[in-house]
Amino acid sequence: MNIGFLGLGTMGAPMARNLLKAGFALRVWNRSRGPVDALTSAGATPGATPAAAARGADILIAMLADDDTSRAVLCEGDDGGALGALPRGAIVVNMATVSLAFAREMVARCESLGLRYLAAPVLGRVTVAEAGKLNILVAGDTSVIDTVQPIFDVLGQRTWRFGDSPERANVVKLAANFMIASAIESMSEAAALAQGHGVAGADFLDMMTTTIFATPVYTGYGAAIAKEVFEPAGFKLALGAKDVRLALLAGEAANVPMPFGTVLRDNHLDSLAHDEGQLDWAALSRVALRRAGLPRTQS
Amino acid sequence: MNIGFLGLGTMGAPMARNLLKAGFALRVWNRSRGPVDALTSAGATPGATPAAAARGADILIAMLADDDTSRAVLCEGDDGGALGALPRGAIVVNMATVSLAFAREMVARCESLGLRYLAAPVLGRVTVAEAGKLNILVAGDTSVIDTVQPIFDVLGQRTWRFGDSPERANVVKLAANFMIASAIESMSEAAALAQGHGVAGADFLDMMTTTIFATPVYTGYGAAIAKEVFEPAGFKLALGAKDVRLALLAGEAANVPMPFGTVLRDNHLDSLAHDEGQLDWAALSRVALRRAGLPRTQS
Amino acid sequence: MNIGFLGLGTMGAPMARNLLKAGFALRVWNRSRGPVDALTSAGATPGATPAAAARGADILIAMLADDDTSRAVLCEGDDGGALGALPRGAIVVNMATVSLAFAREMVARCESLGLRYLAAPVLGRVTVAEAGKLNILVAGDTSVIDTVQPIFDVLGQRTWRFGDSPERANVVKLAANFMIASAIESMSEAAALAQGHGVAGADFLDMMTTTIFATPVYTGYGAAIAKEVFEPAGFKLALGAKDVRLALLAGEAANVPMPFGTVLRDNHLDSLAHDEGQLDWAALSRVALRRAGLPRTQS
Amino acid sequence: MNIGFLGLGTMGAPMARNLLKAGFALRVWNRSRGPVDALTSAGATPGATPAAAARGADILIAMLADDDTSRAVLCEGDDGGALGALPRGAIVVNMATVSLAFAREMVARCESLGLRYLAAPVLGRVTVAEAGKLNILVAGDTSVIDTVQPIFDVLGQRTWRFGDSPERANVVKLAANFMIASAIESMSEAAALAQGHGVAGADFLDMMTTTIFATPVYTGYGAAIAKEVFEPAGFKLALGAKDVRLALLAGEAANVPMPFGTVLRDNHLDSLAHDEGQLDWAALSRVALRRAGLPRTQS
Repeated sequence: MNIGFLGLGTMGAPMARNLLKAGFALRVWNRSRGPVDALTSAGATPGATPAAAARGADILIAMLADDDTSRAVLCEGDDGGALGALPRGAIVVNMATVSLAFAREMVARCESLGLRYLAAPVLGRVTVAEAGKLNILVAGDTSVIDTVQPIFDVLGQRTWRFGDSPERANVVKLAANFMIASAIESMSEAAALAQGHGVAGADFLDMMTTTIFATPVYTGYGAAIAKEVFEPAGFKLALGAKDVRLALLAGEAANVPMPFGTVLRDNHLDSLAHDEGQLDWAALSRVALRRAGLPRTQS
Repeated sequence: MNIGFLGLGTMGAPMARNLLKAGFALRVWNRSRGPVDALTSAGATPGATPAAAARGADILIAMLADDDTSRAVLCEGDDGGALGALPRGAIVVNMATVSLAFAREMVARCESLGLRYLAAPVLGRVTVAEAGKLNILVAGDTSVIDTVQPIFDVLGQRTWRFGDSPERANVVKLAANFMIASAIESMSEAAALAQGHGVAGADFLDMMTTTIFATPVYTGYGAAIAKEVFEPAGFKLALGAKDVRLALLAGEAANVPMPFGTVLRDNHLDSLAHDEGQLDWAALSRVALRRAGLPRTQS
Repeated sequence: MNIGFLGLGTMGAPMARNLLKAGFALRVWNRSRGPVDALTSAGATPGATPAAAARGADILIAMLADDDTSRAVLCEGDDGGALGALPRGAIVVNMATVSLAFAREMVARCESLGLRYLAAPVLGRVTVAEAGKLNILVAGDTSVIDTVQPIFDVLGQRTWRFGDSPERANVVKLAANFMIASAIESMSEAAALAQGHGVAGADFLDMMTTTIFATPVYTGYGAAIAKEVFEPAGFKLALGAKDVRLALLAGEAANVPMPFGTVLRDNHLDSLAHDEGQLDWAALSRVALRRAGLPRTQS
Repeated sequence: MNIGFLGLGTMGAPMARNLLKAGFALRVWNRSRGPVDALTSAGATPGATPAAAARGADILIAMLADDDTSRAVLCEGDDGGALGALPRGAIVVNMATVSLAFAREMVARCESLGLRYLAAPVLGRVTVAEAGKLNILVAGDTSVIDTVQPIFDVLGQRTWRFGDSPERANVVKLAANFMIASAIESMSEAAALAQGHGVAGADFLDMMTTTIFATPVYTGYGAAIAKEVFEPAGFKLALGAKDVRLALLAGEAANVPMPFGTVLRDNHLDSLAHDEGQLDWAALSRVALRRAGLPRTQS
């Protein structure tokens, strides 16, 4: 089974590496050269272009930044993009967080090219990807998923199937990220409330994330908020803003009001307007403090 | 050490029982007679009125429903209420979830009566109270807390101290309940989004609460939302509405905007307007489905 | 017909003056002495205390700042407050903007004293009051309103009756002020949007308030926003914040969600947290600019 | 001067008719045939396709439904769309309400074709268009606007210029429609508040729109809300939803949070989810009533 792998960023690189370790043959491509060389040292075959990495593959895995990058790499380029290089019947597994509209676009394009498309975004950050412990959210044709399952078994601790329509996996991923953003905002407002009454936000968050919210999303972002440490960014606020936007678009498409989502939208815009997009997502907490006229840290 | 204990509701009764088991002498009072009899069988001395239960106590513990009930029981009544029956120097430990304004009112009243006041609201539901595993959020004079600490050690797994000013423990409790309400709303909107795109809300929530949000607040309320089972109510939505209101009032007092809080306010009102106040707090999820025109269950 | 008049602030003073001009006999009281002297020069009789101004009056008009001031002046004080000085059967006309809870409290108190109570808040600012062109929103017993109508005819251009229950006039007034606050916020966000795209907010607002929103609420507040002139305050932002709070409380009492109202609440808190409460209500516009990282003026 | 005119809907038809009356020569096109015939009877020359109507024109006026329709008519079609048929140097005047992204797209396309582009959306509904009393919001090159000014003078009572960049006129139009939507929502919440306390919403709105909000936006939509008459639709709620969406997108592009805008978004989605998109925009008021559990009419 020949696998093409496109996108060796912070998530893609450890995922590809785990596949190599598990004995899969990989042809890899990345926009910048460094990650390609690193994977080549680990046993991968380099591809000079997306199409070169995809040529002849049975399965093409894409882990790219967003809709625009995914479209550019998969469908465009001097040599026609990666999809054009795949043999009929090949499987495209898009593991990136993309919009529902883009998922539909890919389904149509793959169909016209005789390809089979799975959406398979993941839950988990870099360390989880390195450990092969991702949760994989997949949707698409069952038999196609079955074919790819051995790959998912290497990358993740569990695969969650959400039906035949690929975009459903994308909506699940967007809903999940919406919940993470909500957890951050919730901690931010609560900590500002505490701080406004003289309780150090850090003391409050330490208690909450040690007791009834002792789960990584809360402990991780909570600690960053408590310490006001937003660099280096584990996940950039600007990317969170993008995911909130995609969740709202998905809500619009199904007439689902999302009042928490719209608060998140406005607060992310507030952050971006204050040049905080490059900071970690936890920096969203600054909005609540700023609006309340509270200082950033209090001990 | 003589202890008076007022309020033997779903939380108060197991707490009082644990104190008896630990060997403390308790004189108890409750508005309805049944819980008093039950505790008396377990070794407590019954008090016919709040004042009777408080008379001569070194420490008076109150676990009452809200501001109004607390005020009525502690300060009013034919025989002057419980506070008037306490000897000078006695300690009042208010473990209920009350407003900051009420905390300040109690501080002033206790001071004028020569009493010492602690605010000590708790995190944890009935089963946690039964197990003596509550998290106790306390604020007040350090030496007074030290005196009460053996009692807290029986009731809870850990005592969190938030400084000298009793109301700070109340703001922490309100901020905590705000975070719980936010978690419920966040799941509700996310599940509606999923359902609007054909993914069963239950499937979505099962995945989320098994993976990155595997903590009791999410698993408990998430399961209730997924199954649409809101009776019997573990914690009534109407009480949640009250706590959200108190959190917003606390925000107002310190000029802290809380946009998630205000969304929660509106959605709780929507629930109350649809006669859902007696259901479990998880029934807040119906608002998101109703607004999106989605059916209540989908499998 | 003897009239007592309590509260000679920016609104009360011109109202009392108009009544004097129309030939009514007035005994007046105000917390500070200056306005009393001015009205005395115009023919009023000074009252040393609220009770002194009320003693023997057929009709007592109150135009005081808020709930607390109204309660203090009407019901408290060494000589028992104004209500205690009125003869049985006298009419109390409360023209201030107060909460529904306070209206109910007054109704009960007046009933117990054998007095008759009308709520009659007004629409219109100082210049409108001076011109006797207020719109008077009244509720209470019809025959009582009929009795007071000649007074209303002097103070206002039109009296609007909203039924027997006094608090209904108060809810109408709060709903009206909510609409004014909404107009200000709407202009603020729209102007920020325009400015964010290079159109001067002033140019945008000039166009809007000259064309489809050419009505005093928009032209007045719009000009203040456009010019960034918020002093002297025609109506202080802090008072607007209070009225928004009362409107939300009224909504809570009837389970009416008010999402615009809650946005207004948060934005007023943002203003108060930035020490803008003493500025004109139009200064609410600074919140939108601040959050968008836009400069205050752009020409 | 030869004028091509595309789009003879409820707004376009009276505008074209006014131009004919003023003596301008018009070649017209519309998707459906009826309006073309009517205008032809009034002196216009029919065009079989957009390109046929545009061929040889000095000025091409487009008054089409939205981005997609505008793009299809102006740029696509068997004969290349309208723009391809224009001679170099011709002026394209787009009077529709479109997105900023579409405005930028048109600017680029026109530049590449040697055409000159103005954005000139209008304020005013059908009766205003018939009377030639529109307010025209224009942006683009000054000399080009000067050339078109005689046409604007026929169509409108006043032309408002917002600078060189065409998209600025579009952002002004979107901000204006956002303010109209805000006025509707503000009335809706206020009327629900009144009604929740026993005051008929109609009585409240009658008073408000007769006094401090006596301007057509309020009186028109207010009367529809008061009477619960939403058909026939003067302006469909679904179109309002689209404009709110475009305003929010414009806000996103400039990092301008718009909390009223996001409330509007959610409430429009609520309306659409309840099949109210074909009703008049004033039907947005049903959301407030529905959420508060209030009946639709009360007298």
